[in-house]
Amino acid sequence: MNTIAIKSKELLYQNISRNIEHQISNDVLKVGEKLPSIRMICRQHGVSMSTAQQAYYDLERKSLVESRPQSGYYVSRSLARQLALPDISTPSTSSTEKKVDTIFASLHHPALLKNVTLFSINAPSAELLPIAKLNKAMIQAIRDTEDSGTRYDATQGNDRLRKQVAKWSFLWKGRLTHEDIVSSAGCISAISFSLMALTQRGDTIGVESPCFFGILQLAHTLGLNVIEMPTHPQTGIELEALKKIILTKKLKLVLLVSNFSNPLGSLMPDESKKEVVRLLSHHDIPLIEDDIYGELYFGKSRPTCCKTYDESGHVLWCSSVSKTLAPGYRVGWVAPGKYKEQLLKLKLHHTVSSPSLNHEAIAYFLENGRYEAHLRKLRQALHTTYLNYVRVIGESFPEHTKLSRPQGGLSLWIELDKRINTTDLHYSLLNHKISIAPGNMFTLGDQYKNCMRLAYGLPWNVQLENKLKLLGKLIKSTL
Amino acid sequence: MNTIAIKSKELLYQNISRNIEHQISNDVLKVGEKLPSIRMICRQHGVSMSTAQQAYYDLERKSLVESRPQSGYYVSRSLARQLALPDISTPSTSSTEKKVDTIFASLHHPALLKNVTLFSINAPSAELLPIAKLNKAMIQAIRDTEDSGTRYDATQGNDRLRKQVAKWSFLWKGRLTHEDIVSSAGCISAISFSLMALTQRGDTIGVESPCFFGILQLAHTLGLNVIEMPTHPQTGIELEALKKIILTKKLKLVLLVSNFSNPLGSLMPDESKKEVVRLLSHHDIPLIEDDIYGELYFGKSRPTCCKTYDESGHVLWCSSVSKTLAPGYRVGWVAPGKYKEQLLKLKLHHTVSSPSLNHEAIAYFLENGRYEAHLRKLRQALHTTYLNYVRVIGESFPEHTKLSRPQGGLSLWIELDKRINTTDLHYSLLNHKISIAPGNMFTLGDQYKNCMRLAYGLPWNVQLENKLKLLGKLIKSTL
Repeated sequence: MNTIAIKSKELLYQNISRNIEHQISNDVLKVGEKLPSIRMICRQHGVSMSTAQQAYYDLERKSLVESRPQSGYYVSRSLARQLALPDISTPSTSSTEKKVDTIFASLHHPALLKNVTLFSINAPSAELLPIAKLNKAMIQAIRDTEDSGTRYDATQGNDRLRKQVAKWSFLWKGRLTHEDIVSSAGCISAISFSLMALTQRGDTIGVESPCFFGILQLAHTLGLNVIEMPTHPQTGIELEALKKIILTKKLKLVLLVSNFSNPLGSLMPDESKKEVVRLLSHHDIPLIEDDIYGELYFGKSRPTCCKTYDESGHVLWCSSVSKTLAPGYRVGWVAPGKYKEQLLKLKLHHTVSSPSLNHEAIAYFLENGRYEAHLRKLRQALHTTYLNYVRVIGESFPEHTKLSRPQGGLSLWIELDKRINTTDLHYSLLNHKISIAPGNMFTLGDQYKNCMRLAYGLPWNVQLENKLKLLGKLIKSTL
Repeated sequence: MNTIAIKSKELLYQNISRNIEHQISNDVLKVGEKLPSIRMICRQHGVSMSTAQQAYYDLERKSLVESRPQSGYYVSRSLARQLALPDISTPSTSSTEKKVDTIFASLHHPALLKNVTLFSINAPSAELLPIAKLNKAMIQAIRDTEDSGTRYDATQGNDRLRKQVAKWSFLWKGRLTHEDIVSSAGCISAISFSLMALTQRGDTIGVESPCFFGILQLAHTLGLNVIEMPTHPQTGIELEALKKIILTKKLKLVLLVSNFSNPLGSLMPDESKKEVVRLLSHHDIPLIEDDIYGELYFGKSRPTCCKTYDESGHVLWCSSVSKTLAPGYRVGWVAPGKYKEQLLKLKLHHTVSSPSLNHEAIAYFLENGRYEAHLRKLRQALHTTYLNYVRVIGESFPEHTKLSRPQGGLSLWIELDKRINTTDLHYSLLNHKISIAPGNMFTLGDQYKNCMRLAYGLPWNVQLENKLKLLGKLIKSTL
């Protein structure tokens, strides 16, 4: 039985609710923390189920807790001052060109980033990865693979891995078999081969805006024109805008991050996915779907993919384990639909085959139920860090900061006061051992100079909280 | 003391010589086997150094043995009927196009090649690889690499590996530092990035003829025109022809396999390397040097590279461990000279970084003297198999068969009677569980329809001898 005294006139459920509120406001219960189950409340307080439920409804109404289907109640992020969403993007549709290589390279140079808090890196940090189990999988691969992986593997890729990827596709209502899948050196390599198979120098492709800078860079390297399309921070690509662009521009293909896009975190609703696939298939325009964040959902279940609704083979579904297991293993894949032969040929000509051991090790990991257990933990950790980011940003960042509301993935998109140039900020922050990804990297235009992406692939702790507070303070000081 | 009786009137040295000849003809001493040293002969037979030496001169005159500098005497391949060299190639300089994809893919499809004797695969077979030691290196890499290789590596590549490659360059009089080197997914990926950095669709490149089909395929994929240039089976590219082509055609770059080319096995003499580099630098034409076979010399020392003579940075030197250690690891590199920034950018955009563990494992192997010890054994094994191929081909193949004389590398080039179509032969041989690489794959033209490449990256044994004899018999039967 709980020891806090019941105030006179207070109803039972109100007392329970006030009790929890007290713990939250005193930081006994922290943002993102799981709350006792209804059943547990009943036992602790000797109350009925409906009373316990009413207590949580009360807290939910006050935005102090939030429910997650089939998981229970959690201390809510809405605790923090509620920040506005960024607007739907309205990028200029003309394709321009600029240099973002310097920043891009600095984001991937380990020496430059020593002891730096990497808000810039859109990958889970090592503490969140199952390294010991991966090591075991690699040693198993050395034992299992023919001639310990010294042989050239089949060009299409490791058979066991492709079977696992096919099996996992059922979670998003995919109907893939291993024959549909070609392995690659990470997701970007799958996208690179897809672009090389389907475009030539001078062609035009359509992407979201803001858009992952890796895609912009790759397109530039391949001599492609890029049309950045209006994108909603929560629901992704704007259908009406896409329709207009298809009619007025000669799009060779469209590339979308359908689930928890980078950097916005947007999640295309099922209806929107269906409609995009229908529309593009109708116009015989291929869709490269970058689904690298698909497994990192905060909600109840794995979202579907555009590939789920692909009847005609127009969707090239690309993904990898770089955001969930091991960026450094470089293991990815593509289900290229009707473009499979072209993809296979490109892979054969450009690299012959994938490294045998890496792919076998990941296959082994996926086969043994370890992946699901790891993903559950990873999703929980990311969600906790995310909720804490929102709280601290609400407390520490300047007023009128706008913030995306990802329902999964790894990154927050932040819109600051127009006077702040985040590229300048990026360089000055490095002196404080903080690295961010400036908004300018996510467009070929100029519209995101006051924006930035913060990745939350880091375990939440006091040091991180202090760094994030310092970031807020430094931003405020520039105003 | 030796027990064989000395014939009357026979000189001492003649007796020794006859004794050894007897052992060779009775197969007690086998082709490729090392013979006793001069000193050993002196002790065994109680003769002077000069007598022992004279015995070997006698055997050498009869082409029964051959000397290798600083190594001693070996049972000679000249035992076999001496076969003529193929002529200098005279390819048509017009670039045509055709489909060789089907055969190409079948050469890299493990399922199709089960239990097949792979004369077609230009890589050392697993029995010749130091697999147990590689496994140890990989386990060491799991221990040593930061976060067990789950992190993205620096785009330029593993630091330790690049330092080792730089160190090894001293053997071919290179002056590389680790800063000059960018790692890649095998040699073909290094070549692919080099071609992508320096050419655009519609450009023309110059290559040897016959030319490794992987290069022809890659060029085709990239939309490049290929000029196949006259090539000497022993000394490589014909300088006078190259000069003419430079003056008459607009070559965007030249790609040569300078050491033990695939398929001819030609080795460019130092003077020729120097002159090619001088010539191309003068015309500001980059040279992609594929040096993947450079470590596999039968002679006394590592041959130089074109890169050895590169003062102006025009040479992109590409290599890997795919022909010496582990094809399936996909570890290679390029020293791109003055094109380094372009290469780095391409690697970043197309794959971000290389798989961390593979590259660390190979670095570890190279650091510990294991590589040199392994290479010595591998070279010896390949040379033995090569000598035996020559013997068996001399005995079993049709008269007038022409044969290349590689001084290293992995492959023999064979020219058969004009009536034989080796592409047809390839398919019929698969029924006999034999796979060859038909000549047609090594050109965009028609001139090698009666040629084939036989790789000798297999340990010599009775089964292999029988397969090679069967191959000869089957070829004879087609006439």
